[in-house]
Amino acid sequence: MEISQSQTEFQGLPFKSAFRPESVAVIGASPTFLKWGHMILTNILAGGYEGRVFPVNQKEDLICGLSVYKEIGDIPGAVDLAFITIPAGKVAAALEQCGRKGVKGIVLITSGFSEADDEGRRLEERIVKICRQWNMLLIGPNTMGVILPHSKLFATATHARPRKGSVAFISQSGNLGNQLILWAQQQGIGISAFVGSGNEAMINCIDYLEYLEKDPYTRTILLYIESVGDGRKFLEAARRINRKKPIIVLKGGRTEAGNNAAASHTGSLGGEANITEAAFRQAGILTSKVPSELLDFSIGFSCLPLPRGNRVGIVTLGGGWGVVTADGCNEKGLVVPRLPEHIIATIGKYLPSFWSRGNPVDLVGTRDIEVPVVAVEELLKWEGIDAVICLGIVGRHELVRLMIDSARRSDERADSKFLNQVESISSGFENDYIERVTELMEKYEKPVIGVSLARSDKGTISRVEGKRYKGVFYQTPEDAVNVLAGMVGYNSFLRKRSFYPL
Amino acid sequence: MEISQSQTEFQGLPFKSAFRPESVAVIGASPTFLKWGHMILTNILAGGYEGRVFPVNQKEDLICGLSVYKEIGDIPGAVDLAFITIPAGKVAAALEQCGRKGVKGIVLITSGFSEADDEGRRLEERIVKICRQWNMLLIGPNTMGVILPHSKLFATATHARPRKGSVAFISQSGNLGNQLILWAQQQGIGISAFVGSGNEAMINCIDYLEYLEKDPYTRTILLYIESVGDGRKFLEAARRINRKKPIIVLKGGRTEAGNNAAASHTGSLGGEANITEAAFRQAGILTSKVPSELLDFSIGFSCLPLPRGNRVGIVTLGGGWGVVTADGCNEKGLVVPRLPEHIIATIGKYLPSFWSRGNPVDLVGTRDIEVPVVAVEELLKWEGIDAVICLGIVGRHELVRLMIDSARRSDERADSKFLNQVESISSGFENDYIERVTELMEKYEKPVIGVSLARSDKGTISRVEGKRYKGVFYQTPEDAVNVLAGMVGYNSFLRKRSFYPL
Repeated sequence: MEISQSQTEFQGLPFKSAFRPESVAVIGASPTFLKWGHMILTNILAGGYEGRVFPVNQKEDLICGLSVYKEIGDIPGAVDLAFITIPAGKVAAALEQCGRKGVKGIVLITSGFSEADDEGRRLEERIVKICRQWNMLLIGPNTMGVILPHSKLFATATHARPRKGSVAFISQSGNLGNQLILWAQQQGIGISAFVGSGNEAMINCIDYLEYLEKDPYTRTILLYIESVGDGRKFLEAARRINRKKPIIVLKGGRTEAGNNAAASHTGSLGGEANITEAAFRQAGILTSKVPSELLDFSIGFSCLPLPRGNRVGIVTLGGGWGVVTADGCNEKGLVVPRLPEHIIATIGKYLPSFWSRGNPVDLVGTRDIEVPVVAVEELLKWEGIDAVICLGIVGRHELVRLMIDSARRSDERADSKFLNQVESISSGFENDYIERVTELMEKYEKPVIGVSLARSDKGTISRVEGKRYKGVFYQTPEDAVNVLAGMVGYNSFLRKRSFYPL
Repeated sequence: MEISQSQTEFQGLPFKSAFRPESVAVIGASPTFLKWGHMILTNILAGGYEGRVFPVNQKEDLICGLSVYKEIGDIPGAVDLAFITIPAGKVAAALEQCGRKGVKGIVLITSGFSEADDEGRRLEERIVKICRQWNMLLIGPNTMGVILPHSKLFATATHARPRKGSVAFISQSGNLGNQLILWAQQQGIGISAFVGSGNEAMINCIDYLEYLEKDPYTRTILLYIESVGDGRKFLEAARRINRKKPIIVLKGGRTEAGNNAAASHTGSLGGEANITEAAFRQAGILTSKVPSELLDFSIGFSCLPLPRGNRVGIVTLGGGWGVVTADGCNEKGLVVPRLPEHIIATIGKYLPSFWSRGNPVDLVGTRDIEVPVVAVEELLKWEGIDAVICLGIVGRHELVRLMIDSARRSDERADSKFLNQVESISSGFENDYIERVTELMEKYEKPVIGVSLARSDKGTISRVEGKRYKGVFYQTPEDAVNVLAGMVGYNSFLRKRSFYPL
């Protein structure tokens, strides 16, 4: 591991040109479906990349309607970033040409380097040397590609195209990363950058962290790591950066079985990289044990204000849901305080006499839009509450839709105009509620975490034009509790320099 | 609590007529959208209930095209099950009429009984007495309804209509139950019966368990409970039944906050009902802390053979995924054994030289259908493996679909016929793979738990005609690991009468 070398050269490397390229080349571009040179090129083109795209291939003249260049040197004008998909044996020569052309960054998709055998390791050393010599930033080799939504540059084999946003994700596993990026797209998570870091021959995860520290688009950082090389250095950097931008880590290889698997995957050695859970915590880094949690956390941190303490108000459409959420809160170190009489009195004005009169506030199936908003605001207003979890206002429209469908199907004389009206009112109700909640979060600077009543394909995040925060509606109460607990822990680290003991 | 009474009378009650009704009445049927009497009636009608349906309402003549009866006594022919949605004060009189009519079972939706106040409690005692007198089974009051898919009877406010199957779900929370039933439908889980047990005035969760023990449609039982009344009796019954049909419990009110919430929800008192996690374990009952897990477990138990031990083979499309799965296995008490040379040699014939040569078996992005099948079978065949987790063969079609879309959009001269062919081959590949896996499970009587590469709306379960087991493809590796660990624990309880220490 040559961390110190890559570190010293970090400042001199053209990170910005590589991460905000105005033109890209695909060396090994191919007209053949399922070849890497086709997957990357068609993704870039169909994804609507805003810069210029140059296919390079010695045997073709036209691919996807674009003129093909025999060599990168033939391209008129500058090339910021070159994707390389040609066989390992031909990479060194191509890199020399890139260097002469003035290319700033290389995404080396090709595998067969240090992850394969000793010969590959020697080859990898050679290509790093070439890139250093020409001052080119090298991502990979053996990477699944990069996604840079702020440049509309989607360049991975998985043709997922998440929207642009503030969450960066560096992954030492391409396939894990790609899968999560697809889910991120489905959930509506905004991404600033995704990098499959591959073999990390030149740029390792510490370097990426240090770049992201200064990247204006990035506010939250996700890492999947199996090995970090110099653990002490990683923790030092992470501890500093984490105070500005929360870092959430999934560490692969925590157990014997995982470690064995990691050794054959990225060639990481457990001994070298075994940063413990406790060490991550000391650096204020949130850790996750499962991939999906990385995304859950990123949504909370990127869309909601940070809670200032661990006291939770729960608003629920239905008692059982409130019970499991209260249990979850307590089990994660969150407190569900009893409400003072004046709040009970205010909320009680809107509810039938037999309501729960406590926290959780059970709205008993009310259909008045004012009631959930009043309940949420009364809780936010109170200094005894740091965050609100609101279960099931959003998603009810899906249930109404199902009911309307039944009404139509069971009665041929059903009043269609009236049912259309109901559908439109119910849909508007949800949108109004989301808008009100984003306003309340801004007013009180406390998070309101939602849970959707029905699983839908709408995604987890609802954006409201002009609002600082976003509506967040997880699929399950456990997700909401878990994320809130993580945010409380992070806030506690920021304030006291120690992690809240969850 | 009158457990002993309801217990002694359990055998005499007409459970079967209530759970397999040939005709139903809706007392309080209404033409008004969003009223309970409309929600229940339209759900029953639109859901395609196969028996006769009789609306009862004193003021209407025709609802949903059906003749309306003033009183239940006016209905020609027998009524097995009556849904009641009229106000609490009118329920007693209606029950007397039901009794005279010879109704077998009552689903009393109406609230305002013991959950409301002392007067409600007295009223509840009175209606239980009436039902006992007429030998009518009483579900509720304050229930969200029932779903009996084997009779195509869907009678809840949430118009979810899960397919028929072998999973029964008794829930002391209507809203939690309804929500989970909607997810069950989305995931393709087959349901034998769902009951919102409401206030459990006559029939409590022990009674339901004892009915389900003998119900030929039910093979797996899910319970959401806040209070079980007589804890010792519950555990005794559960321990016996659990040996035939696995019982999975989510206990609400485990913590102080949850307990307070439960007290105001179902009026349960912590002291009375506080069965500990350890006590559940001793009875061999799998416990869940979060609602979604109930469904995850039910899928494993109802679709897969039970693993005979805790040794897991992992097959993965991509290294990182294998690493996090191996970590998860170890952290849940599962073992990921090293493979003997003969298995490495056999699988190695199908893979490039640089493959992982171990467990997890990383298929390195192979596109040959034989390779995953060979890998899975080689692992199943080996006596050193009790179960296989296979990551990402299914779901790849979704990625291929995205790639084809890019190819079309980026190249107007793309060979459309060829791309259609690719799409069809890729789709067929997945179906073939699922069929082969179900055959292998039958051949080796070991579970193969899948994880889908892409989150899709296809659901978790894939059925193959004529096969004993079903294809199961969870959304995340953590779900697969968690369910497998639960099944291993249950099997260990069955064999050794003690729970595997997870």
